[in-house]
Amino acid sequence: MALVKTPKSQQQLDRLSAALESGTFVDVKRMLNGLPAHDVAHLLESSPPKFRHTLWRMVDRENEGEVINELNDELRVHFLSDMNASEVAHITEHLEDDDVADILQQLPDAVTREVLEAMDHHDRARIERVLQYPDDTAGGLMNTDTITVRPSLTLDVVLRYLRRHEEIPKMTDSLFVVNRNDQFIGLLPLRTLLVSDASATVREMMDTNIEAIPAYMPDDQVARLFEGNDWVSAPVIGDSGQLVGRITIDDVVDVIREDADHSLTSMAGLEEDLDTFAPVFRTASRRAIWLGINLLTAFLASSVINIFQGTIEKVVALAVLMPIVASMGGIAGTQTLTVLVRGIALGHVTPKNGWWLINREVAVGILNGMLWACVVGLAASAWFDDWHLGLIIAAAMVINLVTACLTGAMLPLLLKRIDIDPALAGGVVLTTVTDVVGFVSFLGLATWFYG
Amino acid sequence: MALVKTPKSQQQLDRLSAALESGTFVDVKRMLNGLPAHDVAHLLESSPPKFRHTLWRMVDRENEGEVINELNDELRVHFLSDMNASEVAHITEHLEDDDVADILQQLPDAVTREVLEAMDHHDRARIERVLQYPDDTAGGLMNTDTITVRPSLTLDVVLRYLRRHEEIPKMTDSLFVVNRNDQFIGLLPLRTLLVSDASATVREMMDTNIEAIPAYMPDDQVARLFEGNDWVSAPVIGDSGQLVGRITIDDVVDVIREDADHSLTSMAGLEEDLDTFAPVFRTASRRAIWLGINLLTAFLASSVINIFQGTIEKVVALAVLMPIVASMGGIAGTQTLTVLVRGIALGHVTPKNGWWLINREVAVGILNGMLWACVVGLAASAWFDDWHLGLIIAAAMVINLVTACLTGAMLPLLLKRIDIDPALAGGVVLTTVTDVVGFVSFLGLATWFYG
Repeated sequence: MALVKTPKSQQQLDRLSAALESGTFVDVKRMLNGLPAHDVAHLLESSPPKFRHTLWRMVDRENEGEVINELNDELRVHFLSDMNASEVAHITEHLEDDDVADILQQLPDAVTREVLEAMDHHDRARIERVLQYPDDTAGGLMNTDTITVRPSLTLDVVLRYLRRHEEIPKMTDSLFVVNRNDQFIGLLPLRTLLVSDASATVREMMDTNIEAIPAYMPDDQVARLFEGNDWVSAPVIGDSGQLVGRITIDDVVDVIREDADHSLTSMAGLEEDLDTFAPVFRTASRRAIWLGINLLTAFLASSVINIFQGTIEKVVALAVLMPIVASMGGIAGTQTLTVLVRGIALGHVTPKNGWWLINREVAVGILNGMLWACVVGLAASAWFDDWHLGLIIAAAMVINLVTACLTGAMLPLLLKRIDIDPALAGGVVLTTVTDVVGFVSFLGLATWFYG
Repeated sequence: MALVKTPKSQQQLDRLSAALESGTFVDVKRMLNGLPAHDVAHLLESSPPKFRHTLWRMVDRENEGEVINELNDELRVHFLSDMNASEVAHITEHLEDDDVADILQQLPDAVTREVLEAMDHHDRARIERVLQYPDDTAGGLMNTDTITVRPSLTLDVVLRYLRRHEEIPKMTDSLFVVNRNDQFIGLLPLRTLLVSDASATVREMMDTNIEAIPAYMPDDQVARLFEGNDWVSAPVIGDSGQLVGRITIDDVVDVIREDADHSLTSMAGLEEDLDTFAPVFRTASRRAIWLGINLLTAFLASSVINIFQGTIEKVVALAVLMPIVASMGGIAGTQTLTVLVRGIALGHVTPKNGWWLINREVAVGILNGMLWACVVGLAASAWFDDWHLGLIIAAAMVINLVTACLTGAMLPLLLKRIDIDPALAGGVVLTTVTDVVGFVSFLGLATWFYG
């Protein structure tokens, strides 16, 4: 009993790898299908492609749905693409509605229709209810497995009603109270039900302070509500206030993880929910695009340097020092950009308080610009025994660091306003600006002085 | 009832800002203290320093504990530093054990002792139980508000026992079954309790498949267990299997958010759980360190260029093109580094499958290196009308992109092994390598040819 879950499953995973290597197929298959779906998915996600396909073929058909459900988007689509519609319908039979809807939304429309037709009438109706909402809204996150009660019942009746259920759905911490039009009017937490006088009515004991989530609320707002209120589950309502489903914390955790992942991967020009072990060609071709975009900005910076060829020929020390100006600008700008992208994602930064941030970043740019301008200026003066050069690089440093901080702060706010993802586009535009301004200010000042 | 939570609280926040601006102090104070603690914390986190202090002074003393608890680390420490020990003891009185422990761990040791002494005996004992574990372990995340039952009881007795409680702790989805030595032996989910025959015993109905979490398990492992098993709460046990507390999903969500945040902020050399609206001097001085470290690497790159001054003087086009080689290497390396840092954080990458990734990245580096070498080579040949220059830059591109991908893959694995955070140290080392190798390969080849 005192055994630990993770070490145990880690041991199992290790034994599995060992068995796979020694090739005792039957053992592997038995062990693999004894693991929870989440562990199998983790194992698939942590495996190189060849190994992964061997593993996947060993997963029993009845476990495939659960495992597919736990996989990242990329791998999920990959395995689904090998199945026909009736297979998909079959393996998703026992999944929750929102999970089935998620899977269907990743298939081509024609296949989705086929899968829906292959389902039984009742299942199809439930899934179609979830499918009518975009998958990044409350409606797309919800399940339809709600337990509802009427306000006029006594708790005693509710308890007997519950006892008639064979099972209460997972993550049910509250019953939903609805009126005769199916409109949500309150919550009856199980915690309340269990400690209250059984002769009291639902109306007396229900919590009406909870406001239901409208089906079209964006999923990041839903996540913030769950976090702020420490909810385990919450009701979802349609336009006229009727209860349409419920959202549970496990699905919200996925939203939180994906949103946090988004900023990190996008800032490096990588796709969201990416497959760590994607094969060579897929990886190379995706990254090639990002490199191509960055190459354009690099050529732009080069063409700026090209203007000042004459000056560089005269004072070759400029070529030695110019990367310092550009690189320090890039670092300072990236720090500001990261703070802003993160602040926007967390909902801290709004157009209103954005101005304060822009002002602060300019001040930070001036302070750090002056500090490092002194250091770099003195170092350059000493190195090339030319204090004019020191003054020039110091001035360029201040100009570029202030520009970097200003751009890093304004850019995400501007991009956000015109509905472009700041995490994705910000970095490229920023380094273009810091490279160009860095080279122009340094080489420009030098040309004015030496030229 | 059909009203929406967020729009409503957003409206409240907007009205609050308006009231603050028009200066109707009494209104603001009333509105502020009517908001949930999480919203007040969000408002404080989204406010520039001056505004923030005005707001904080308006928070009623009895709400301060809840609000402090919801704040990011930086702001929390900031507000706590203005309080004395008995004030801290007073405002944390009604918080959960793990939250109090978190707060205490951020205070100087002497203050923590004073706060503990100012608490009543019973509270102190509970908090000290949590404080004995590091805050990034299961023990540091746990509360002590467990409800335990004995296996021999019938469900009927359990139901009557529960009814004697005035309140069941939040997020209680299961009762914990313990033997006479207080050792955890199983779970009795409320879901089971509510649908099962009341004459059955706890022993018959309890779930013994759940293994308890050992108190010293690291918090990221705890988070993975919760995610994998869709838990709402889970028991924590000490060395001899005795139940010491329970962890609830709301605390796990915080761990997940912080871990995801860590990779993003660290890669830009920013502190974790940072305050978006930190004042100018604090921001500038923190960022200065990172800029200083990067300046050292920039000087290293410059000193490499310095070696090749003679060649640059002869062929000034080299100065124009050299940033392209360095910058493309930086981009390619950062992409690989991000994939690895993320993969390590998610637990996908292990020393075992790391080799596969290193091989893949080298292959990706070769493919993308050759692709963009052709493009850059042709462009450079045409631009400067010198196909030798085109060949030289093409060769340097391949060398630098392969080095970049190899370094981006190996570096985090190496850093991880010697216990240095790859997210923090990776970027600096990587750009040093890509800059140096970029300049050496391009200028070195050029010197060999033209020199």
